[in-house]
Amino acid sequence: MPKLLQGIITVIDVFYQYATQHGEYDMLNKAELKELLENEFHQILKNPNDPDTVDIILQSLDHDHNKKVDFMEYLLMIFKLVRAHNKIITLFHKEHGFISSGKKTFKCGL
Amino acid sequence: MPKLLQGIITVIDVFYQYATQHGEYDMLNKAELKELLENEFHQILKNPNDPDTVDIILQSLDHDHNKKVDFMEYLLMIFKLVRAHNKIITLFHKEHGFISSGKKTFKCGL
Repeated sequence: MPKLLQGIITVIDVFYQYATQHGEYDMLNKAELKELLENEFHQILKNPNDPDTVDIILQSLDHDHNKKVDFMEYLLMIFKLVRAHNKIITLFHKEHGFISSGKKTFKCGL
Repeated sequence: MPKLLQGIITVIDVFYQYATQHGEYDMLNKAELKELLENEFHQILKNPNDPDTVDIILQSLDHDHNKKVDFMEYLLMIFKLVRAHNKIITLFHKEHGFISSGKKTFKCGL
């Protein structure tokens, strides 16, 4: 499978991998969100195991205030993360005068 | 690396893999978009090699009408694709009375 489709499917799969653990299959409750953050974002979150971190993130994602994160709320988080990560890449390139015509092996990394 | 971060990075990497081939490193021109569509979406597009397909998609993505697709325009396409794919999954589950509590191995597939 082409890698872009694989990446897209991974983003969807991860949501359901955690959402289907307890209760509604299409919502992340607080415990499921906590597990997702601990397992998937421990490299970028300062304190992924801190209960306050989960509360703060849940509050920021939960636009309809039902104490759960639905797929669209999750997707907005991913969207913001990708945008933020791309801004860092762009800034880095501007600061380092990156010119990349013909450079096919660009990797953003982490 | 956790698979969600890997998925996110793949989405970013694929954009730059094609955007850095010619001209501006942070824009997909028509030729680069054509290559991306042919290589990455041949499984889901009806006619990925049809020149009209590229024109129609470019027109629908190019919000600022500069005949190029920048990262945010690309990201909106990914966002819409993920949302559309998730709608199909949800519909499938509703039609088949899917109840998945505790089901950790959910896969959306294609």
